Amino acid sequence: MQAEKRPPTAAFIFKQFCGLTGIGVVVSLFLRFQTVFMRHTISVLVENKFGVLTRVAGLFSGRGYNIDTLNVGPTQDPKLSRMTIVTHGDESTVEQIVKQLNKLPNVIKVHDFSAGESVDRELVLVKVAVDSKSRAEVMQITDIFRAKIVDVQPKSLTVEITGSEAKVEKFLDLMNSFGVQEITRTGQVALPRK
Amino acid sequence: MQAEKRPPTAAFIFKQFCGLTGIGVVVSLFLRFQTVFMRHTISVLVENKFGVLTRVAGLFSGRGYNIDTLNVGPTQDPKLSRMTIVTHGDESTVEQIVKQLNKLPNVIKVHDFSAGESVDRELVLVKVAVDSKSRAEVMQITDIFRAKIVDVQPKSLTVEITGSEAKVEKFLDLMNSFGVQEITRTGQVALPRK
Repeated sequence: MQAEKRPPTAAFIFKQFCGLTGIGVVVSLFLRFQTVFMRHTISVLVENKFGVLTRVAGLFSGRGYNIDTLNVGPTQDPKLSRMTIVTHGDESTVEQIVKQLNKLPNVIKVHDFSAGESVDRELVLVKVAVDSKSRAEVMQITDIFRAKIVDVQPKSLTVEITGSEAKVEKFLDLMNSFGVQEITRTGQVALPRK
Repeated sequence: MQAEKRPPTAAFIFKQFCGLTGIGVVVSLFLRFQTVFMRHTISVLVENKFGVLTRVAGLFSGRGYNIDTLNVGPTQDPKLSRMTIVTHGDESTVEQIVKQLNKLPNVIKVHDFSAGESVDRELVLVKVAVDSKSRAEVMQITDIFRAKIVDVQPKSLTVEITGSEAKVEKFLDLMNSFGVQEITRTGQVALPRK
């Protein structure tokens, strides 16, 4: 939810070490790129107690960690809920987050999905501006992405799309050219492949 | 996320008024049922600032309000995020929640979807235990619900289902008879039909 100052990264240290020579700059920029865009999906199983969500959210905001998306919902056990948090940062930052989460009261289990294989999915509802000409085109693209039209109004279509982040982002990029009026995203959920 | 003591409801007052006569009990039970299960989907547009999620979550936990599900994700404007919160309570409780949310810093707009028509959707990933006999049956039900099988393991299937709460609950009820191993739900998102 927030762009902010980051701690010194491996790239930064490497850059300092290499000085501003050509290869040093290229490699350090690459490392910096990798570091900044390293995203992690963290699943947190919690007890249904008052204040758990506040504590988890507070842990992130208090320490200046990013939350890109977060969702929380019930599980098969009525006493437990599962949160899925998408965050980004370097390995050590995320390791620290996981450790801090494990220490919180009412947290049962924390799982970082970047380690193993997982099924990741997100649901997005997007309202796209259309006219009599562009409607057919939006419907074609919706069909190609196996998305669904869930509402039709004279000057807009509401489309439901589910999939991996890459698929959803590609679809939203295409819809931007028609004019996105409103958008609501659940954030990712994940289950391990095992 | 939480079951807890509730404020005296209309049903309770009605019950006190009618005493324990037959019709009084029946009507009061009906009112109580209606009151307890009145669910609201609230959409909150917020600025991407540190601590917004903590404040929103804190508003609910601090005042003893329930959060059934919550999700937060980016919008078409990179400065803004949208939260969707599903909560339950009587009209006056929810009205109070909306008022309190409107007063929070960095909250741009609050919309209670119970008032008008809306498109509501939820995404659920569910891992179901199967053997060679039950696999076909789970696949049939998945097909009927237009859900998707997203992972197959020797002793389990992972199914992705999207839809209204009623549809998702019905599917999960059916899956329970096979044995649900893991479940992760995004919580509802909603857009107005207008």
